[in-house]
Amino acid sequence: MFISPWLREIVDLALKEDIGMGDITTELVISPHDKGIAEIIAREEGIIAGLEIGREVFRIIDDKLEYKPKIYDGEKVKKGAVIAEISGKMSAIMFGERTALNFLQHLSGIATLTSRWVKLIQDYPAQLVDTRKTTPGLRQLEKYAVMIGGGRNHRKGLYGGILIKENHIKAVGGIKEAVLKVKKAAPITLRIEVEVTTLEELEEALEADADLVMLDNMEVRLMKKAVEFNKGQAILEASGNITQDRLQDVAATGVDYISSGALTHSSTSLDLSMLVRDDF
Amino acid sequence: MFISPWLREIVDLALKEDIGMGDITTELVISPHDKGIAEIIAREEGIIAGLEIGREVFRIIDDKLEYKPKIYDGEKVKKGAVIAEISGKMSAIMFGERTALNFLQHLSGIATLTSRWVKLIQDYPAQLVDTRKTTPGLRQLEKYAVMIGGGRNHRKGLYGGILIKENHIKAVGGIKEAVLKVKKAAPITLRIEVEVTTLEELEEALEADADLVMLDNMEVRLMKKAVEFNKGQAILEASGNITQDRLQDVAATGVDYISSGALTHSSTSLDLSMLVRDDF
Amino acid sequence: MFISPWLREIVDLALKEDIGMGDITTELVISPHDKGIAEIIAREEGIIAGLEIGREVFRIIDDKLEYKPKIYDGEKVKKGAVIAEISGKMSAIMFGERTALNFLQHLSGIATLTSRWVKLIQDYPAQLVDTRKTTPGLRQLEKYAVMIGGGRNHRKGLYGGILIKENHIKAVGGIKEAVLKVKKAAPITLRIEVEVTTLEELEEALEADADLVMLDNMEVRLMKKAVEFNKGQAILEASGNITQDRLQDVAATGVDYISSGALTHSSTSLDLSMLVRDDF
Amino acid sequence: MFISPWLREIVDLALKEDIGMGDITTELVISPHDKGIAEIIAREEGIIAGLEIGREVFRIIDDKLEYKPKIYDGEKVKKGAVIAEISGKMSAIMFGERTALNFLQHLSGIATLTSRWVKLIQDYPAQLVDTRKTTPGLRQLEKYAVMIGGGRNHRKGLYGGILIKENHIKAVGGIKEAVLKVKKAAPITLRIEVEVTTLEELEEALEADADLVMLDNMEVRLMKKAVEFNKGQAILEASGNITQDRLQDVAATGVDYISSGALTHSSTSLDLSMLVRDDF
Amino acid sequence: MFISPWLREIVDLALKEDIGMGDITTELVISPHDKGIAEIIAREEGIIAGLEIGREVFRIIDDKLEYKPKIYDGEKVKKGAVIAEISGKMSAIMFGERTALNFLQHLSGIATLTSRWVKLIQDYPAQLVDTRKTTPGLRQLEKYAVMIGGGRNHRKGLYGGILIKENHIKAVGGIKEAVLKVKKAAPITLRIEVEVTTLEELEEALEADADLVMLDNMEVRLMKKAVEFNKGQAILEASGNITQDRLQDVAATGVDYISSGALTHSSTSLDLSMLVRDDF
Amino acid sequence: MFISPWLREIVDLALKEDIGMGDITTELVISPHDKGIAEIIAREEGIIAGLEIGREVFRIIDDKLEYKPKIYDGEKVKKGAVIAEISGKMSAIMFGERTALNFLQHLSGIATLTSRWVKLIQDYPAQLVDTRKTTPGLRQLEKYAVMIGGGRNHRKGLYGGILIKENHIKAVGGIKEAVLKVKKAAPITLRIEVEVTTLEELEEALEADADLVMLDNMEVRLMKKAVEFNKGQAILEASGNITQDRLQDVAATGVDYISSGALTHSSTSLDLSMLVRDDF
Repeated sequence: MFISPWLREIVDLALKEDIGMGDITTELVISPHDKGIAEIIAREEGIIAGLEIGREVFRIIDDKLEYKPKIYDGEKVKKGAVIAEISGKMSAIMFGERTALNFLQHLSGIATLTSRWVKLIQDYPAQLVDTRKTTPGLRQLEKYAVMIGGGRNHRKGLYGGILIKENHIKAVGGIKEAVLKVKKAAPITLRIEVEVTTLEELEEALEADADLVMLDNMEVRLMKKAVEFNKGQAILEASGNITQDRLQDVAATGVDYISSGALTHSSTSLDLSMLVRDDF
Repeated sequence: MFISPWLREIVDLALKEDIGMGDITTELVISPHDKGIAEIIAREEGIIAGLEIGREVFRIIDDKLEYKPKIYDGEKVKKGAVIAEISGKMSAIMFGERTALNFLQHLSGIATLTSRWVKLIQDYPAQLVDTRKTTPGLRQLEKYAVMIGGGRNHRKGLYGGILIKENHIKAVGGIKEAVLKVKKAAPITLRIEVEVTTLEELEEALEADADLVMLDNMEVRLMKKAVEFNKGQAILEASGNITQDRLQDVAATGVDYISSGALTHSSTSLDLSMLVRDDF
Repeated sequence: MFISPWLREIVDLALKEDIGMGDITTELVISPHDKGIAEIIAREEGIIAGLEIGREVFRIIDDKLEYKPKIYDGEKVKKGAVIAEISGKMSAIMFGERTALNFLQHLSGIATLTSRWVKLIQDYPAQLVDTRKTTPGLRQLEKYAVMIGGGRNHRKGLYGGILIKENHIKAVGGIKEAVLKVKKAAPITLRIEVEVTTLEELEEALEADADLVMLDNMEVRLMKKAVEFNKGQAILEASGNITQDRLQDVAATGVDYISSGALTHSSTSLDLSMLVRDDF
Repeated sequence: MFISPWLREIVDLALKEDIGMGDITTELVISPHDKGIAEIIAREEGIIAGLEIGREVFRIIDDKLEYKPKIYDGEKVKKGAVIAEISGKMSAIMFGERTALNFLQHLSGIATLTSRWVKLIQDYPAQLVDTRKTTPGLRQLEKYAVMIGGGRNHRKGLYGGILIKENHIKAVGGIKEAVLKVKKAAPITLRIEVEVTTLEELEEALEADADLVMLDNMEVRLMKKAVEFNKGQAILEASGNITQDRLQDVAATGVDYISSGALTHSSTSLDLSMLVRDDF
Repeated sequence: MFISPWLREIVDLALKEDIGMGDITTELVISPHDKGIAEIIAREEGIIAGLEIGREVFRIIDDKLEYKPKIYDGEKVKKGAVIAEISGKMSAIMFGERTALNFLQHLSGIATLTSRWVKLIQDYPAQLVDTRKTTPGLRQLEKYAVMIGGGRNHRKGLYGGILIKENHIKAVGGIKEAVLKVKKAAPITLRIEVEVTTLEELEEALEADADLVMLDNMEVRLMKKAVEFNKGQAILEASGNITQDRLQDVAATGVDYISSGALTHSSTSLDLSMLVRDDF
Repeated sequence: MFISPWLREIVDLALKEDIGMGDITTELVISPHDKGIAEIIAREEGIIAGLEIGREVFRIIDDKLEYKPKIYDGEKVKKGAVIAEISGKMSAIMFGERTALNFLQHLSGIATLTSRWVKLIQDYPAQLVDTRKTTPGLRQLEKYAVMIGGGRNHRKGLYGGILIKENHIKAVGGIKEAVLKVKKAAPITLRIEVEVTTLEELEEALEADADLVMLDNMEVRLMKKAVEFNKGQAILEASGNITQDRLQDVAATGVDYISSGALTHSSTSLDLSMLVRDDF
């Protein structure tokens, strides 16, 4: 994972938020000369994501700290596994501990959930896709974690894809009109996607030659009909109310993608902790 | 909720993340002259938190939008309830929709979970408290949501409280030494808290006259003994592995506070959506 | 044009650059109570772009200034035409004068050049497209100006499209391999484009079912063959060494898009100036 | 060239603009372990400026990349010349390629144009000077490129010099009054310059003992008279409508400086490209 | 005083520093609906500077607060005088109170000290000038306060003037060489100043036709000789070890300017406080 | 002293302020290849504070400079002592000189004053404490300097402590009500402090079991009565109008803390300078 200037700003912000005007306890208690080694440990089984963000946290704190991941992003770890080792000034390690863990726990939680859902539909052609329902500020990281978990990304933001929704359609007067209007003017690198809720709307979308069609909040039965009607013309994305229970049924309809906001807005944190090694 | 310069920066970042180089779809399809009214609606029951952040999102987009909350933060809403109404330029409403919802859904999810847990222990004196295990960048907002849900805040960051942990104690050589060292030098507005795992350590902490003692990862039985041993000298906080199942047992030990990272790192989003009114 | 938080940051930076620690002359000479009206005037014929950025410049300086554009972005003006009128505190108008003009002159220069080139190929189906060869910091604005001039946008940045170039192909071992690899993992909202320089490479790209193929630095004769070979399978973009002289010949080959960096990196500024009205 | 915190912010912004949420293509195709060497090559003859900005671009991306300029800023290169060599992670080189080139091409274009104009007037005492008509955000870099091309700088911003213009004069009531007012209060390190359009105004400026007088938009003949009238009292700057054609005639009038916005707002990019070496 | 984007950033930073994650006390105690009126009062006699910064502090907090200065910057107030009145939400007033006072007290302290020193030398032609020995971050504001107190500004930063110091001279090999080198290349809007410590150096500076000469750390007797030797050729600035005691003696030597870092680095705060009106 | 992201932002800002668009003199005169050694020297006796900020200034300028402090923060130096040595590129040293000195002089001034006052009350139990009356932007650094001088810190900002003041009390209706209200809701890591001006108010505060009581602007005699009345129940802080003259009398009353804004808002700069070594 490439730590771009944008991600660096996010990490910087997270450190300002936690350290602010100083880690009073550590600065009072631990000598700036003390050195040590700490390990980040998994306290439950899961898929790890975000090791490079951990590295960046400690690099910003003190670029003399040595940060050694013991695994790769995407690996499944068991309870007790060592994920990364950090060595150097003890105080610096403690300044970064919580922020590094908060990133890693959150992203690993998303990768773990995604991986579980991906497995559920592995016998179907459908791929699992994320949405823009992400935690404010963490969009790029969360979408990265979805990929690490085996999912794929939908557009990264409003700038990264065309998605014509109900309100857009109303404003122009019809699906066809909206798709054609956008086709003439959108950046040429973007596919045109349009949201439909009925077969009639799907027909209109296909007539306008939309690249992607989002079947929004459809019953599984209707979705199946949509897939048949489509005959492979547009790429189909099932969206809305995707729960773990419905996942396989939706996949069985033959859609190409299944998108779910739950991957990023309702995953739970993977339990990780940092331990200072005593044998040092 | 006061939107300080710090919170404004968070909202600005979230908008840059989602809108970036522009909402291509909306800019191509919706005329900048179109006006409309949209409502934020609850799609499930829960406690709402973050209405002022929603206002700030739309204010940054277009300060001529009118934003009218229909309820107060902390109110419980039913499925279908209107939470806020936004009117003005249709395109501006759509630029802000997702970001506003992402904040509101996340914070309302935390408030709702907190409220449920608070209720579980309402017959005990113990109060529910959050931790620093928060989503990077959203610390202040998440702690606000915990308060709205009826919980209390632990320190907001490393700058906002003294918490002497295992590694600090090791570095100085003992609980007593650590507490006394900090007592002489900490900002006078902060309480001194120290983490203990045994009754012996608790005794040491009490001898050093710590203000707060965190009973870390103790069995319920041991916790009960700690409460008895303490005899009201220090304020006691139960911490570590606090799950919904254990919550009442822990509360029944007589501790003053129960802190849980799950409130902020493992709550799920409350389902909200934005609808454009047709009758406009 | 929507002034997003990102664009606001660009304008803020431009004002810091010009005003810095203050407009010493104006602050010494002009009373903060003096009011006046100024007009932005075209000193040569051209297409205007960027009026909303002009508004934002003056709004940041003093939100009590009144800024009235007299035309719309995209209109062609003659020498002497009034483009916008600003009224309010004389000193505030002068603080913003140069920065507003610098934006408007630069963007109008791009729109004017684009418009001229678009006219040259208006009898062909090919559309004129920009590139990422833009002025650092002004990408979004320059691409906006290209649209205003009648051109279309290529990807806005590395995040906004897939373009597999020679070095990417080398790294994977072949065009086909590269396209297929990306197809499996790219955000589903993006088209896959690949750069080719020969008919053999084009064939490979078509076999891999690339959405877009960039014919890079091809002779016109070869381009024509590529168009025939393609038979409408992929969308074709002519790129590299596009000069005004070659423009029509390239368009005549039947390609879908012609992209040129010159639109944004080598246009000249449109001559505008600001005059204070004497009759005030 | 010293990369100050201000310039670092500009480079950071340019990278955020191009890379944003990630270089999707490169991240999918090129392994983070691949290494390589790339060269920046001149594709036409010109004067190079901005090599240190190129270094900063790659340093921000990955401080382990090695960046070796092969020439100095200000050197004239022939078509095909290698300007700099970058070695290290292939993906990191590709993340920075376009941004580095965009800076170098733009600045080298300015240095090349300036150099050509400076040569045209090399037999006259007049020196070529830039203006504040620069590209928003790139002021300092563009002025640096003008110096590299052999020109000199006028004030860097409103904070870096006193220039009393027509509107300032009107506000105070006369050239003399304006100059005297400023003389009493301006920072003592700045010269006082005033704009005049007639010999009468020049006389007034000389009576007020202005340090510099800008002969604004004067005919060459009138400029000559102004030079004679001045008798070396003030330093004279010719400004307004300076084109390549008029340059020598203006210089022949005997003015001290000739300032032109065209150097920075209407130069064209110098054609550079980056090639990955195959022999690696 | 014009609140430029740069100053707005300074105020924003100051508010982040004081309010950070929230004014816990006020948010818990004062209802967001309470309104009130507060007055900023002088608790000792002095010259007020910075009223517009006070306005900006409260505007950032809550743009509905009404802020009414009762005097102008530069006015002398007596103990007890009302300087400004703020009305609106009581909580908002309290969020901004300390930051607004901290700015106003600091700047008024500088203006008051400057005014006292200016008075001491009012019978001499010499003017009092500041230096770059200012408080980090407050340079522009402190230099503004010096002007309000009747002093003048030296360069605002390294970008705003040429000052050739001892180390520069050593690097080039002599005063004359250094001055001539700079004369050929500096921005044409800046005067050339050079530091001298002996009459021989002054002679060299005059031969090189320096615009300004700084007499650095000279005895009063030597300064007097320097003034005579100079015969009005260069503008002379006395600098180094300027105390209140020596001020008049230095002024009596006939130098043009006397510069002192003490104005900005060693003034004491003017005592101001904010009172909430009871009669509201 | 740990240079957190927040402090790095402050240093960056200070460098932007001083260097801005470049150190014109140095860039024209000193070759970027020249190397040298410079020393920071005390020109008067005092306590040094801020050596790590000096290091950060030079690191941001050029991370190849070597910065060697010769003493520790908190050491008392005599006139002429060498405080730190910087070696590397001569031009880089000069870019950072003034900013580094401005920080060090300001912070050392505060440490020196604090140390002097602390000595005055060394025979009493009372400790000297700072306030929020600090220079905008330098809060954390100034409070650090107070600690280095032997003082202690009050809350770092509104977020770092509870202090119920007169206006808060009025809003709630009484001291007791206010304290109890806050006790129920404040972050559990913060002490509750309340301001009182009479013995009656003190009594109320004690009844509400406030942790800290600020005796605001009390006469020494009244303070003594308050200490007696308190009988060790609350921690007592004397505040308001604390001058060097009154210091010992206040300490003699038996209060626990004496807080004074003068430490940070009215200390004078310690005289330091930088000399380039000739023997290099």
